[in-house]
Amino acid sequence: MNTFALAPNVKRIQSDIEKLATLTDPEKPGWTRRPFTPWYYQGREWLENQMLAIGMEVNIDAASNLIGRIPGSNPQLPPILIGSHTDTVTGGGRFDGIIGVIGGLEIARMLKETGTILQHPLEIIDFTAEEPSEFGISTIGSRGMVDNLSQEMLQRRDPSGLVLREGIRDAGGYPEEISNLPRKSGDVALYLEMHIEQGPVLEQYNYKLGVVTGIVGIHRYRVIVEGKPNHAGTTPMDMRFDAMTGSSQIILELETLCQKEYMEPVVGTVGKLNVEPNASNVIPGKVIFDLEVRSLDTGNLEQIINDLKEKSINIAEYRGLTVNFDCLSKSEPILVPPYILSVLEVACKETAPTLLIPSGAGHDANQLAKISPVGMIFVPSKDGRSHCPEEWTSYEDVALGVEAMARALLAFDQLNEIK
Amino acid sequence: MNTFALAPNVKRIQSDIEKLATLTDPEKPGWTRRPFTPWYYQGREWLENQMLAIGMEVNIDAASNLIGRIPGSNPQLPPILIGSHTDTVTGGGRFDGIIGVIGGLEIARMLKETGTILQHPLEIIDFTAEEPSEFGISTIGSRGMVDNLSQEMLQRRDPSGLVLREGIRDAGGYPEEISNLPRKSGDVALYLEMHIEQGPVLEQYNYKLGVVTGIVGIHRYRVIVEGKPNHAGTTPMDMRFDAMTGSSQIILELETLCQKEYMEPVVGTVGKLNVEPNASNVIPGKVIFDLEVRSLDTGNLEQIINDLKEKSINIAEYRGLTVNFDCLSKSEPILVPPYILSVLEVACKETAPTLLIPSGAGHDANQLAKISPVGMIFVPSKDGRSHCPEEWTSYEDVALGVEAMARALLAFDQLNEIK
Repeated sequence: MNTFALAPNVKRIQSDIEKLATLTDPEKPGWTRRPFTPWYYQGREWLENQMLAIGMEVNIDAASNLIGRIPGSNPQLPPILIGSHTDTVTGGGRFDGIIGVIGGLEIARMLKETGTILQHPLEIIDFTAEEPSEFGISTIGSRGMVDNLSQEMLQRRDPSGLVLREGIRDAGGYPEEISNLPRKSGDVALYLEMHIEQGPVLEQYNYKLGVVTGIVGIHRYRVIVEGKPNHAGTTPMDMRFDAMTGSSQIILELETLCQKEYMEPVVGTVGKLNVEPNASNVIPGKVIFDLEVRSLDTGNLEQIINDLKEKSINIAEYRGLTVNFDCLSKSEPILVPPYILSVLEVACKETAPTLLIPSGAGHDANQLAKISPVGMIFVPSKDGRSHCPEEWTSYEDVALGVEAMARALLAFDQLNEIK
Repeated sequence: MNTFALAPNVKRIQSDIEKLATLTDPEKPGWTRRPFTPWYYQGREWLENQMLAIGMEVNIDAASNLIGRIPGSNPQLPPILIGSHTDTVTGGGRFDGIIGVIGGLEIARMLKETGTILQHPLEIIDFTAEEPSEFGISTIGSRGMVDNLSQEMLQRRDPSGLVLREGIRDAGGYPEEISNLPRKSGDVALYLEMHIEQGPVLEQYNYKLGVVTGIVGIHRYRVIVEGKPNHAGTTPMDMRFDAMTGSSQIILELETLCQKEYMEPVVGTVGKLNVEPNASNVIPGKVIFDLEVRSLDTGNLEQIINDLKEKSINIAEYRGLTVNFDCLSKSEPILVPPYILSVLEVACKETAPTLLIPSGAGHDANQLAKISPVGMIFVPSKDGRSHCPEEWTSYEDVALGVEAMARALLAFDQLNEIK
């Protein structure tokens, strides 16, 4: 087996990505292919035909994930999965999710063309509806695969009136079987995913590849700062209880705390903020803002929130305000096991300049991690942009990601730990 | 003439205020009497009857202001005006504006009951629609009196479809004559107004009366801070262009600048702020906020805005943001002339503990100042509240204001300067 023969075809990758970009909603901005729409089904039909053309077995599972399979030489082994998604956000780009599926398809073609037979079965998966959906959840298909899609979720209705259960049925799934047929721990040897970074780091520091060290945990809080909505003209500066100036101080404290040096990087953001009554001549009586902190290190997240709460209480006391932190959600970080990391690191470094980097965004890998070790490779995002029409990764960079993933796949196929 | 006989009747004042409070829209919160509504007309009808009962001549002028007149002993002299308004904001209180009109009525009764004849004619005026209206302007009636109500304003339509011109006609005005019959400089000897403070200062420092030193000028700006709306998870802290943290710094700088000691007090407020895209997982790309600064000293306002602009540019440069200040409006302060101030100060101090204080809010006096010297007296607002159902001034405090105003009126009537 000659790994150097596993060279991806850049032109074919480009052509595939460009083809999928034509199967998008012409009435929506950017390249929009929302799940359970005609354009989504057209994309999947095209994808299925590509899989069939190289002799893959194609199935749609209970949760409507599209799966192309190549048998392994050892029928005792569980499959290695390579997946991502072909749905986009509204007004999205041509790369997010898509390159992971096209990359998997390209690897299958390379295996076929070089006559390479893996010991493990290989599955290339287009997971249903990874992006945030109108049903209020994301990673719908990968949730379904690992039995993390509840009956309550399946009964949710989107604003168009579609019930999720029926959407999954339309997409070829059989929703009544989702909780009967999930994959369990041990059913999958390894889950691999290639994705755009969606951030500026690789580009900024001139790396072509990122080995994902883990997917950050996210702690989200709603902060409610209350003062008094007094008259902006008649209330002297020293008799004010201004919820906006108090909130400004808290926001800057969060920034300062997150800018400190930690073993694992931390980011913290106030992205959503609303002022009441929000009139130019009334001192803000109430400000409600959502803050989130993300890191691979849960301990740091807890410490930062505790420090921020303490500082916020002091700020509120000094200003005669009240402040409350309501926890909205806490997700645990996903850590890539060291024996997976090292294989990916070697494969990537053999291919191109590589940085080890956490993923600040969630992926289908979050779900698969419930039943399987996971590994991810990032390729650079131009200007760090994603979820917008400007989203861009050069086709050469995508091909480097595919090459590294192919190298890693061949190495993993030999690895004792994942058998 | 015995000024001590000019003692207001607290019970009568209370009864009048309570009566007007019954003439309010039962379907709206608080005590709501919007202009050009049945409740507004009921209130005016009651008021007209009170004026007629003590022998006043009652007229409605071109701009639909209700005017009760007592002739003076010297027909050569222009009138002294005492006015305010009986309209309220939606969900408003029982005192704002109302006590100024009722106070004027009480003074007319006191003059009548004591047989006091002034040299100047005296007019008690209920100005039409002082509060911010659905036509996008305030002080409609007093604007009309001084020819500051344009044809464009008269043609504006409110959301219910009412054209302002027709509202004024419904209220008894003759809008086609507004610009033919305005009062001009010299037509009015003096304009006096008693009003609730709408702020916390008198109550906080245990004063019963405020002599208004002037009405602050207001400079309003829209500030636009632009960064980049990047992914809150994948963008490290040192690669962000966060419009919200930048705006927070600017808001705190404004507060610091306004908290400094100035000869004339300054207040500065950011009351309205909107974040784009305002999603909890996106770093704010744009924040737009309205700021205003108010003072009697225009020089201080200019200096504060200049200092803030300079600091904001530095903040923006450091953070890789852009910042723009768009001037929305600049109103000039109204200064009460020293010879008016001193008479008011003596009259108030003879009555009760008195503080000299600027008015941070606008009033009908802003309009009258275009043609006449103006003087104002404040009475305390409980907890500084106004424009809300909790708005409260004790009837005893209102009566102290009426007493002080009556003393001042008798003094002004003798004063050479205003003849």
